[in-house]
Amino acid sequence: MGCGLPVGVFDSGVGGLTVAKEIMGRLPGERILYFGDTARVPYGSKSKETVTEYSRQIMRFLISQEVKVVVVACNTASALAIDAMRREFEVPILDVVDPGARTAAEVTKNGSIGVIGTEGTIRSGMYSKFLYRLNPDLNVYSKACPLFVPLVEEGWIYDSVTREVARRYLEEFQGKGVDTIVLGCTHYPLLRNLLKDVVREVLGEGVTLVNPAVETAKNLKQLLSKKGLLAGGEELPEHTFYVSDGAEKFRSFANSILLCNVIETKDVAIKTFE
Amino acid sequence: MGCGLPVGVFDSGVGGLTVAKEIMGRLPGERILYFGDTARVPYGSKSKETVTEYSRQIMRFLISQEVKVVVVACNTASALAIDAMRREFEVPILDVVDPGARTAAEVTKNGSIGVIGTEGTIRSGMYSKFLYRLNPDLNVYSKACPLFVPLVEEGWIYDSVTREVARRYLEEFQGKGVDTIVLGCTHYPLLRNLLKDVVREVLGEGVTLVNPAVETAKNLKQLLSKKGLLAGGEELPEHTFYVSDGAEKFRSFANSILLCNVIETKDVAIKTFE
Repeated sequence: MGCGLPVGVFDSGVGGLTVAKEIMGRLPGERILYFGDTARVPYGSKSKETVTEYSRQIMRFLISQEVKVVVVACNTASALAIDAMRREFEVPILDVVDPGARTAAEVTKNGSIGVIGTEGTIRSGMYSKFLYRLNPDLNVYSKACPLFVPLVEEGWIYDSVTREVARRYLEEFQGKGVDTIVLGCTHYPLLRNLLKDVVREVLGEGVTLVNPAVETAKNLKQLLSKKGLLAGGEELPEHTFYVSDGAEKFRSFANSILLCNVIETKDVAIKTFE
Repeated sequence: MGCGLPVGVFDSGVGGLTVAKEIMGRLPGERILYFGDTARVPYGSKSKETVTEYSRQIMRFLISQEVKVVVVACNTASALAIDAMRREFEVPILDVVDPGARTAAEVTKNGSIGVIGTEGTIRSGMYSKFLYRLNPDLNVYSKACPLFVPLVEEGWIYDSVTREVARRYLEEFQGKGVDTIVLGCTHYPLLRNLLKDVVREVLGEGVTLVNPAVETAKNLKQLLSKKGLLAGGEELPEHTFYVSDGAEKFRSFANSILLCNVIETKDVAIKTFE
């Protein structure tokens, strides 16, 4: 019952595709129904009220498509809107903040954790709150990195400018003994190799980067298995991608991120899901 | 009749404040009613349909506030939505593309013009079309510079990273004999001094930067004067600033751009203006 229904994944734009990719890798039988809110991207600089309203519309759309579970693959929406969504909707909802924070708290040896993310995620203090709730003895340092998303979208992934920007942002953690850094934005795993280098250069050896996308995919597997909702099919599922604007542009970016071939993307009038 | 009504100015966010600032400087008696669509910023990466729909809602809002003229202080909205707006609304509408293009066509000596702007503005080809219509013998070269807006919003105005990014973008014009460059995005005048240096370094002496904000303010003065709509008051007017999200954040940015002190900003539920 319900096993054959798709897994809903949403993000403010293309970033959540890094989460979708991890789900495809770990749960190859699951059909993904992705929604990217490209008409209103980015969420990172918007207020709690606005992000909550947008998230609510997307939840209604995903539920109209009969998803069995929703993965909020957007750190800003996870940080700002998750409580309101869980209060309002019955479908199980996974976010990216919880698994990212739990893993960081487990992985750190000295209790000093750095969090990087968009302005909205960092301003919300969501990762810090979550980490302190897990363990009040942790030391959490946060740094908003608003240029990373546009740099990734410009395609400057292995680039001297991006490296210099990363250096400046990460220097904020110098002298704080940070041994674990959470990549608190779904675009950041695309910069993982560059960030590894810069972290080594700026903060020394032995710092672990936590990718919440990976942890979220693991959590999803546990949840579906516990609820008896794992897809049983043998054949590879067909994923569906919806956006609120610019389906064609989304498709080409998605093809560059995902291993699978995104054949078609569809436009949705998301604001009508009031 | 109508002289005392405000001048409506709108933009996708804070960028249009550079236009408002030029209007305040040249028409100090005019009361400005500004709307920044901060809930849906940026427009630069969005489609024509979406930008037109958003612009239409904003026009309805401004008309509900009884403005005597509307200045579309957003290059993307000017490029993508101006025809639809002029067809639908009776209030006089000024855009920033027309005056910017006209000035560039007048200023160039050798007919080679560079245009820089957001992805949306450049993709629309609006400046090129306009310039070729003015003079088919011009040579127009365009370059989207998507990192400039986030760099300005990060506050990295005089900065080595911004300088390197500018160098890469402007190198596109090398070898093309460009003697005039249009700053086709309202954020770019904030980088004017840095851009002047980089232009000299990359393209040599004698290249003129055209700031459409200045030209738009001049056009507005002509239009109001022709229609007998210039404000007559002696006292300094009180401007009003509306945004669709994050009034407080807008206020602090506005205060850093404008000479006047922005005392209050108000939130508007812009999507209800259907």
